Amino acid sequence: MKLRKDVLPKVTGRAVYANDIVLPGMVYAKVVRSTIPSGRIRSIDASAALEMPGVLRVFTAGDIPGIPSQPRERPVLCPDRVRCVGDGVALVVAESPEEAAAAAAAVRVDLEPLPALLDAERALDEDAPLVHETGNRIARYVTVRGDAETALAAAPHVLRRRYTTPRVQHVCIETEAAVASYDPGTGETLVRCPVNSPFPIRKVVSETLGCPMTDVRVVLTTIGASFGGKNYDIALAASRAAMASRLLCRPCKVVLNREESIEEGTKRHPLFADYTVGFDGEGKLLAMKIRLTLDGGAYTSKTFPVTSRMAIEGTGPYQVPHVDTEAVSVYTNQVYSDALRGFGSPQVDFCSESLMDEIAAYLGKDPVAVRRLNMLEDGKPSAFGQIMEDVTLPQCLEALEEAVDFPARRERIAVYNASHSRSKKGLGVALLHRGESFGAAGQGIDTASGMLSIQPDGSVSVCSSIAEVGQGGSSMVAHVVHEALGISWEKIRYSGVDTTFLTDAGPTVATRGTVFSGGAVYRAAGQLREKLTAYAEPYLHTREVTFEDGEIFESGNPGNRVPLQKVIGDVFAASDHLNALGYMAAPPLPYDKSCGVGDAYLSYVYGAAAAEVTVDVRTGVVSVDEYFAVHDVGHAFDKAEAEGQIRGGVCMGVGYAVMEELEMSEGRIQNHNLDSYIIPTALDMPKTTPIVLEIPGRYGPFGAKGLGEPATCIVAPAIVNAVADAAGRRVRDLPANLEQVALGHKVKKK
Amino acid sequence: MKLRKDVLPKVTGRAVYANDIVLPGMVYAKVVRSTIPSGRIRSIDASAALEMPGVLRVFTAGDIPGIPSQPRERPVLCPDRVRCVGDGVALVVAESPEEAAAAAAAVRVDLEPLPALLDAERALDEDAPLVHETGNRIARYVTVRGDAETALAAAPHVLRRRYTTPRVQHVCIETEAAVASYDPGTGETLVRCPVNSPFPIRKVVSETLGCPMTDVRVVLTTIGASFGGKNYDIALAASRAAMASRLLCRPCKVVLNREESIEEGTKRHPLFADYTVGFDGEGKLLAMKIRLTLDGGAYTSKTFPVTSRMAIEGTGPYQVPHVDTEAVSVYTNQVYSDALRGFGSPQVDFCSESLMDEIAAYLGKDPVAVRRLNMLEDGKPSAFGQIMEDVTLPQCLEALEEAVDFPARRERIAVYNASHSRSKKGLGVALLHRGESFGAAGQGIDTASGMLSIQPDGSVSVCSSIAEVGQGGSSMVAHVVHEALGISWEKIRYSGVDTTFLTDAGPTVATRGTVFSGGAVYRAAGQLREKLTAYAEPYLHTREVTFEDGEIFESGNPGNRVPLQKVIGDVFAASDHLNALGYMAAPPLPYDKSCGVGDAYLSYVYGAAAAEVTVDVRTGVVSVDEYFAVHDVGHAFDKAEAEGQIRGGVCMGVGYAVMEELEMSEGRIQNHNLDSYIIPTALDMPKTTPIVLEIPGRYGPFGAKGLGEPATCIVAPAIVNAVADAAGRRVRDLPANLEQVALGHKVKKK
Repeated sequence: MKLRKDVLPKVTGRAVYANDIVLPGMVYAKVVRSTIPSGRIRSIDASAALEMPGVLRVFTAGDIPGIPSQPRERPVLCPDRVRCVGDGVALVVAESPEEAAAAAAAVRVDLEPLPALLDAERALDEDAPLVHETGNRIARYVTVRGDAETALAAAPHVLRRRYTTPRVQHVCIETEAAVASYDPGTGETLVRCPVNSPFPIRKVVSETLGCPMTDVRVVLTTIGASFGGKNYDIALAASRAAMASRLLCRPCKVVLNREESIEEGTKRHPLFADYTVGFDGEGKLLAMKIRLTLDGGAYTSKTFPVTSRMAIEGTGPYQVPHVDTEAVSVYTNQVYSDALRGFGSPQVDFCSESLMDEIAAYLGKDPVAVRRLNMLEDGKPSAFGQIMEDVTLPQCLEALEEAVDFPARRERIAVYNASHSRSKKGLGVALLHRGESFGAAGQGIDTASGMLSIQPDGSVSVCSSIAEVGQGGSSMVAHVVHEALGISWEKIRYSGVDTTFLTDAGPTVATRGTVFSGGAVYRAAGQLREKLTAYAEPYLHTREVTFEDGEIFESGNPGNRVPLQKVIGDVFAASDHLNALGYMAAPPLPYDKSCGVGDAYLSYVYGAAAAEVTVDVRTGVVSVDEYFAVHDVGHAFDKAEAEGQIRGGVCMGVGYAVMEELEMSEGRIQNHNLDSYIIPTALDMPKTTPIVLEIPGRYGPFGAKGLGEPATCIVAPAIVNAVADAAGRRVRDLPANLEQVALGHKVKKK
Repeated sequence: MKLRKDVLPKVTGRAVYANDIVLPGMVYAKVVRSTIPSGRIRSIDASAALEMPGVLRVFTAGDIPGIPSQPRERPVLCPDRVRCVGDGVALVVAESPEEAAAAAAAVRVDLEPLPALLDAERALDEDAPLVHETGNRIARYVTVRGDAETALAAAPHVLRRRYTTPRVQHVCIETEAAVASYDPGTGETLVRCPVNSPFPIRKVVSETLGCPMTDVRVVLTTIGASFGGKNYDIALAASRAAMASRLLCRPCKVVLNREESIEEGTKRHPLFADYTVGFDGEGKLLAMKIRLTLDGGAYTSKTFPVTSRMAIEGTGPYQVPHVDTEAVSVYTNQVYSDALRGFGSPQVDFCSESLMDEIAAYLGKDPVAVRRLNMLEDGKPSAFGQIMEDVTLPQCLEALEEAVDFPARRERIAVYNASHSRSKKGLGVALLHRGESFGAAGQGIDTASGMLSIQPDGSVSVCSSIAEVGQGGSSMVAHVVHEALGISWEKIRYSGVDTTFLTDAGPTVATRGTVFSGGAVYRAAGQLREKLTAYAEPYLHTREVTFEDGEIFESGNPGNRVPLQKVIGDVFAASDHLNALGYMAAPPLPYDKSCGVGDAYLSYVYGAAAAEVTVDVRTGVVSVDEYFAVHDVGHAFDKAEAEGQIRGGVCMGVGYAVMEELEMSEGRIQNHNLDSYIIPTALDMPKTTPIVLEIPGRYGPFGAKGLGEPATCIVAPAIVNAVADAAGRRVRDLPANLEQVALGHKVKKK
């Protein structure tokens, strides 16, 4: 059995999380935060705090050795203005966490309130308060192809629909944390933290400290899940710990409690979407006009690629000849938005997959049939004009239909519904397409690196800066080595992430781990295969060889073989080495950003899903009874793992579909902890059938494709479509919670 | 000023040595040792020890998860036989070092004494006790060229001389230490220790644990000097700590105290040398017959390359047409011998440089003139038949003569001696040649690696597994980067050594750091230069460029320039990277091991030295008054550093010349601590004039050559020649201590 590389430390409780680290002389820092969404700092009075036991220092922005932040990014400590509730204005450092917390409460911050912008859809109004002096627009991306206006005017049927999605959060079990130790001798600051983007974090910390990047070393601790959240949030924790450590010459720990994590942590972008769609009598799509407004909150981090992804994927996995999409993200004085598993897709997937059902319902057609009529095809242009290849939607849909047996299931549901007046069952479907990695329009860099080192005893270490966030990233790279070099699983060590020794492999986001980092490791393995093949030639008299189970043999002639270990010995005996650095960068893509047309992503993944729900039509309680998820992963290194990742994605999607929403009032989050911000428990999980297809892609190692984010993207629309099917009530504003399902509208809590 | 990369932590006391590491739950291990030089373990009774407070376990060889040792290498714990005093037979682990020590004293080891071999020169006798069942000979190397027998018979003058050199030790300020932490979750054992050979140590630890090499990670701590001693001694400490940590699942620290370090630590090979030399009336060498016996002690580590080096360098830096050298190293039941700064050279340099003076005295010639008559020349064969190139002995000797002013100095000395009856001054000289790295005959691997990583902000980290042992190895690689890429000193970080992330760069021994590791880093820098040059071409329209002070400019036309930072930005903007792995392996050398003739080393370093001493002829007290050391370092990255390294080498040489000797009695060391094993203090240091020549070599980066070992090699003969010049008494058995100088023979202490 190939035990996951990260599993034993976790199940034995031996895994070391940042909060487990205790260093001699360590101090603890606590942030004093803004209580208002917009204001100017008049004064900070730390005199009382400084008198309290154990308190060492109270730092403010002026103490930062470098710069508080890049423009429009969240500051480590605000120099003058606060732009959202939770903004850090001072940092109390004490000998214990309790003393730091007590003193933080005693710091008096005098804030002059300024007008706050809380409504994203008002952000671009003439009279809107400016969150940043340079204007409230963060990003604008369009996809304009054909003539949507004319096509819509000519279309036999037109529907206009407005959808909204809520502000939700990652809810990792581990909150944000970092331990920094500045070494006054070497000048190096070692930051140990659970971060999915070690290199970008190093940059932020070095800017905070005003030192060269190589003076900061980021070493990953065990990560208690990321979902996109162990990113800029960790940069803040790390920078604060680092500045305190630097200024006090003592190690410093910063750990947020759950309330702080909810208050400060980044969120999924809320979306306000207006769709206009034209179609013919069969349901064939003729044109779409889409206007998307994303609430970026007070600062920007991954808002650019999230916005660009929405502009591209807004039409769903369908052919639309005339498209006019505009996605605009704006600043508001709300807690700010960043990457969250799916990265824009779950929002627009909810819109497009709801819309397909609405079209089907309007025409009285089968929702599956309407999708099949429109879905992407090989050799045909996507809505954004990319000539598609390797579209596996037909296979996904076929696998779904086989598993679900729609006719039989609908019949059973009809029987049930006929005999139940309060409780109604329904069936919903959704299709998935998703560009892998950052793509041509995004501002992320589609590169990755991997390092391999075979030792004289045949054991091998594999390095990649892919973070193990629980997704199995560490095992994925080990599988690549195992399959590429035929080295036994037990002899492969995943060596963690240390920015000092590794090449920047980009952040662990955007479902790019397998294709890009796996690809980079595969290339490194390829270099070693090549060298080993040359050293094996004196034995095998050919370079057409296969690596398997610790042997190299002539391809197709396994009798002609040599033990891999013998060849490894020869390499070292010849004073040669077996280290390799692999690198993978996406090729430039023909894509016109001005109109958003062209090859938006190098590759795409596809899936299909169906949900069966039971709705209590009086209370609005939705029970997700069963869920079918088909995902084409190209090549499953470990099928059980892939299925596990699908189940996790379904769980997260259930929360997005029917439970989760951060309720805001005057810029303040109202549900402060997990007693009021409800996420699914095991009891909320549907019976789930993950179906893993393996249709090899052309970019990932062994044809593998990404699965991390796709697993959650279309769960909400499948469920909401099922709710509509059951209750006859179309929920267009996520989540489909009690009020929405029972009353048809949201109830504002306060 | 280019501050050494290791200096601030050391002078501020912030440097973390292994003994400074304290981990939660850490336990402490103490070794129970053999008290006899040869015996069989009848039984080990740990019952009393196990009852003592804080004691956790007492391990014996049977508890070792893997193997106790490779054949004929020192065992982690002896399974059945002990072969020298100090051999480990049990390991007591307790909650504190004091408890471990107390319990170790309570372990009863019943040893059956066996006949002990204590005299190396009797080791190959028929009836000699066998130290290892396979025989007492460790290694035999010869250099046989021409017909020495016939040439000696025909020579006008023949001298026969016997020289011996003592058993001495490294005396690093830091004793042997290691901290191991086994992680039961990941299965990885992290070993933090001060080791100059991180990769070989990893192998030993993994064999002890019976695990793949990649399950062991060696991270270097600050090293409190090595001089060759932070090698197999550390492997033992590390293996013992690792086995205890593995078996108890707790971190374990092993630190030897000074007595243990003296008892167990490896030593410089004692040498018994018989020289027969034939020469003509001018002092021209005609033939040499050399018989060398090295006392390897009970086990072997670096005895092979030490023996081979002696067979090659035994004739000194002179042309000898007929040579018959045989160097044989043998086992004895003494503490064992390993690498020690100079690695064989100081022993034979003492012999050959004494011999040259004896020839000069015999003929009544000037010792300098006799040397000049015989010294190596470009285009002429060495004694071992290598056609020499880049011989810089003439320049070294010229620089020495200029600095010393022999005629004037001899005159002053004559005046002094004429007026002092009890106190006599004398002047001695010596010449140096030394092969760099391991060479063709040695069993070391002449390879090295380096890793460079330029970050987007232009800072760079440089990795190499060269250990910073105080020699400035970390600064050397930084200098290579600085000079090769024109990156400012402050932006270059030396990133320490971690076996998980680096390519094996071989051990930090044999004066191979600068040429090989520096060379590997230079190659890595070359890869980055090439890439940066390509990216600079659009600005400069040429690839003939110079990197200097953060700019790239057209060579010879500095007006045509572009900032390096701009080009670095372009690289990253193009999704490219600036990481490089450099590797350097010595080419195969034409060398015939069977007769020891050919290109023994890739390259050589040269030097010349003179010492002026004052001898109290009644007490035998030698005061080394002045010392001149000329060394051709090829290219001095930092001249003050080079001079400092020379001073350090002189200090060590003074100890070897007039003070140091481990006195043995029945296999037991008699001088147990630094109160009886005397090493030089600051007051013993002569006024030293280091003279650094920079005549570029063809292999090292920027022409640099090694200096670490050469700095100490010929100090003793220069001093002993001066003593002979002053006192008229030739000391042929080092050290030239009171008894030898005053009485003419050694006094056995017990």
